[in-house]
Amino acid sequence: MTGKVYLVGAGPGAPDLLTLRAARLLEAADVVFYDALAHPDTVALARAATHVCVGKRHGRISPSQGAINRALVRAARRCRTVVRLKGGDPMLFGRAHEEIQALDRAGIAWEVVPGVTAALAASAELGISLTRRGVSRSVTFVTPAVGDGEPRADWPSAVLAADTAAIYMGAGQADRIAAALLARGLSHDTPVVLMEEASLPGRNAGWGTLASLPRLAARWGHAPAIILIGRVLEEALEEARRDHGRRPAAAASPLVPV
Amino acid sequence: MTGKVYLVGAGPGAPDLLTLRAARLLEAADVVFYDALAHPDTVALARAATHVCVGKRHGRISPSQGAINRALVRAARRCRTVVRLKGGDPMLFGRAHEEIQALDRAGIAWEVVPGVTAALAASAELGISLTRRGVSRSVTFVTPAVGDGEPRADWPSAVLAADTAAIYMGAGQADRIAAALLARGLSHDTPVVLMEEASLPGRNAGWGTLASLPRLAARWGHAPAIILIGRVLEEALEEARRDHGRRPAAAASPLVPV
Repeated sequence: MTGKVYLVGAGPGAPDLLTLRAARLLEAADVVFYDALAHPDTVALARAATHVCVGKRHGRISPSQGAINRALVRAARRCRTVVRLKGGDPMLFGRAHEEIQALDRAGIAWEVVPGVTAALAASAELGISLTRRGVSRSVTFVTPAVGDGEPRADWPSAVLAADTAAIYMGAGQADRIAAALLARGLSHDTPVVLMEEASLPGRNAGWGTLASLPRLAARWGHAPAIILIGRVLEEALEEARRDHGRRPAAAASPLVPV
Repeated sequence: MTGKVYLVGAGPGAPDLLTLRAARLLEAADVVFYDALAHPDTVALARAATHVCVGKRHGRISPSQGAINRALVRAARRCRTVVRLKGGDPMLFGRAHEEIQALDRAGIAWEVVPGVTAALAASAELGISLTRRGVSRSVTFVTPAVGDGEPRADWPSAVLAADTAAIYMGAGQADRIAAALLARGLSHDTPVVLMEEASLPGRNAGWGTLASLPRLAARWGHAPAIILIGRVLEEALEEARRDHGRRPAAAASPLVPV
């Protein structure tokens, strides 16, 4: 018997931001491989499954991606339904390509279930649309994190050319990000928000500008965080300054200007 | 009594790509406002609610955005739970900003529930990760569609600067898109896929290059479609050409090269 591997988006963190399809697959799973950031309640939906933590966290990888690939192949040779649960969406900064390639080589069937990505959860919680008529018609999702042996990509160009940018896995190197964007001519007063743990009870949003991003990150950027940059944030930044950290609107998070 | 308005992402189309939170809100809704593209099974989850179709389709708007805004305010003054169901994610090309602004002005509480956006559903179905180590670390989501009285934005710059691009609401103007990108120096052989009705039974994917995009769109681009552009598509395009439209992998869609 050879089973099938489902690369499943777990969404941004809150268990109820999982899709119905993902929930059903977890319930049917024989084995589930999950990252360190997966919510326990989400993993617990896989009631009948063996649970295997493959512990990716903060860009550090343990076990290696190769070991995860091999474990998926082995599991599919033993079990009918293998779920590889991935934070956010599998196809956005999820290294899905490497897992798919390994499964293809081993002749194992797979399917991808999309999920809600972190930037959209942050946008929802902040109550700020990433696009807006007359202000933003392009949004770029980018990461400055570079893997071993990988060439450095020109991520600042993508940020500069888009109206709104969401930077993934960047809070730990906010100094370098701010310096790179300032050097490329992005204005020091460009509004920025750093949101950690979007959709989770521990969420926090730190408001500032490109110039104050390093200070924001020093204060907030310890949990997994997303950085949003762009003019769509302007009014909310002003409100956050005026109201000393509270927006009157429905936004769920405490919003603290720096 | 004043109720609360939930701007809820319906996901890309398939009813089971709705989030658990969205499903629960629909079940509790007193009134649901939905677009023409909403799946009937998704709307049907709002069993106890009055259903109001506000019929946006293909960029044409009927009723006007202003009329929708006013209807949301009126409904919130009569009902406890008002759901504004939006295709994909509310904060990405969903005009959520305008609805939020109207609700704020009327002093009505609101909350945004994020959803799976179309580009990620297309990526999942095609089995092609939008990011890939060493190839793509930035993805831009853009629309060339321009509203009445709105300045023309420089969307081609965002596409050129990113490693991968997803173009929303562009299939109807594929000629103009291809011409604009070619004029800016994007190579004519840049791989392109046009996917319509991602996640739905009627899905189709047309494969080609930037040069053949207008022909692809003439053939496929009648239903709502997403256009993906970038080097991450290269191997799949070659496979589609070699296998005359079928990828051996798990991708669910018939893949037709042009």
